Amino acid sequence: MTGLAHDAAPIPAEAKPRRLALVAAKGTLDQAYPPLILATTAASLGWEVGIYFTFYGLDILHKDRHRKLKMAALANPSGPIQVPSLLGAMPGAIGLATRTMKKWMSDSRMPDVPEFIEMAQGLGVRFFACATTMGVMGVAESDLIDGCDVAGAAAFLDFASEADVQLFT
Amino acid sequence: MTGLAHDAAPIPAEAKPRRLALVAAKGTLDQAYPPLILATTAASLGWEVGIYFTFYGLDILHKDRHRKLKMAALANPSGPIQVPSLLGAMPGAIGLATRTMKKWMSDSRMPDVPEFIEMAQGLGVRFFACATTMGVMGVAESDLIDGCDVAGAAAFLDFASEADVQLFT
Amino acid sequence: MTGLAHDAAPIPAEAKPRRLALVAAKGTLDQAYPPLILATTAASLGWEVGIYFTFYGLDILHKDRHRKLKMAALANPSGPIQVPSLLGAMPGAIGLATRTMKKWMSDSRMPDVPEFIEMAQGLGVRFFACATTMGVMGVAESDLIDGCDVAGAAAFLDFASEADVQLFT
Repeated sequence: MTGLAHDAAPIPAEAKPRRLALVAAKGTLDQAYPPLILATTAASLGWEVGIYFTFYGLDILHKDRHRKLKMAALANPSGPIQVPSLLGAMPGAIGLATRTMKKWMSDSRMPDVPEFIEMAQGLGVRFFACATTMGVMGVAESDLIDGCDVAGAAAFLDFASEADVQLFT
Repeated sequence: MTGLAHDAAPIPAEAKPRRLALVAAKGTLDQAYPPLILATTAASLGWEVGIYFTFYGLDILHKDRHRKLKMAALANPSGPIQVPSLLGAMPGAIGLATRTMKKWMSDSRMPDVPEFIEMAQGLGVRFFACATTMGVMGVAESDLIDGCDVAGAAAFLDFASEADVQLFT
Repeated sequence: MTGLAHDAAPIPAEAKPRRLALVAAKGTLDQAYPPLILATTAASLGWEVGIYFTFYGLDILHKDRHRKLKMAALANPSGPIQVPSLLGAMPGAIGLATRTMKKWMSDSRMPDVPEFIEMAQGLGVRFFACATTMGVMGVAESDLIDGCDVAGAAAFLDFASEADVQLFT
């Protein structure tokens, strides 16, 4: 973890902090964690971090939905796709998987999604909401949590092109 | 969006365009969009762009299949995996989800997958078809749309190692 | 494939090998292959390669589970999530998809997952097991195959920040 050495010595004036650019394109409970863990880890090491939330990932920035993300089995279980015949065939399956994952997380003393979001914002992680897919996913700017920038793919690519690490999670 | 500035001033002879290297490994309707959106956005900003289609992502280059990609619920719903007992348990679920996503896309005036592919090719995006997984996925070179290069993972890694942004979508 | 040139001529003392940093976050049979193929390809070209296994991806390093990875339909079919009502609704679906993928792989003369792991280790690919999610996923250090380093996200970010190609598979 030589990254920690950044804090051990004064950073020369010309030193640029490292930068992490993430895409968060999934909206299930389990798949919300990797970008949030990577972002908060990097930010706590002094990196500049931005996450570009697109498609289902917009649910993680959605005021209401981010508090009730569910496990997969549907592409977007907490969003507007609701397939009655599918859910009807498996009563309780989504709920059981969601409760199981939440228990694993709390047993491991992991923050939950709202806590991770607050932590990330406190550490200065930038949240970009994909303008192109907000319409597709039925997410309006007023649905987003505070502190998000609505941005296009071009803005993300520009941010990412100067990043030391870029990951589409 | 400083990337737009690339077009605003003459590019010095020694300036290399930025490069975007993408892996498209998913073959569902929804997951075909992120690489196509990123690729066409970058290419329209003057970037050099290549997409490496592998595993289920090969369906996006498949002459017939790319016109009828479906939503998830099966790993490869438009491909050769057909699990009768699964589909039988949820009559209509895949079709309903697929029609819903298509409606969202057209309501948002998004191009469909064949239109995005044509747009990408018109902008000079390079399409690499993964030689290693073509056999696995039952895709022959004659199944591919025109203008693809069949290439191995080594060729992609070489292309990606000079990229400013690399994403496995 | 200029990467091959690395082996063709003596490498000057100051030349650093290229580096590939991968995240393997999925634990299904099909999704285990992309990181293993990319890693072994890069390593055979002389690259320095590390894979960070996190969340469901830890199953690929799990002594018992990596030999019986299954196809998707559940998020983590070979892991501890077992949703009886879901499986009950589709008798045989998971098993059929798994057998189909295994047949495709062997018909294409692809190594299986244990063979790929052995090949990767023989080529010097480094395996990092995500310390943060081992607890969440119920994976103990004694469950891991030999030759893994338990590491945090900070260590991975540090490794990745010096990589020529970084991909979250």
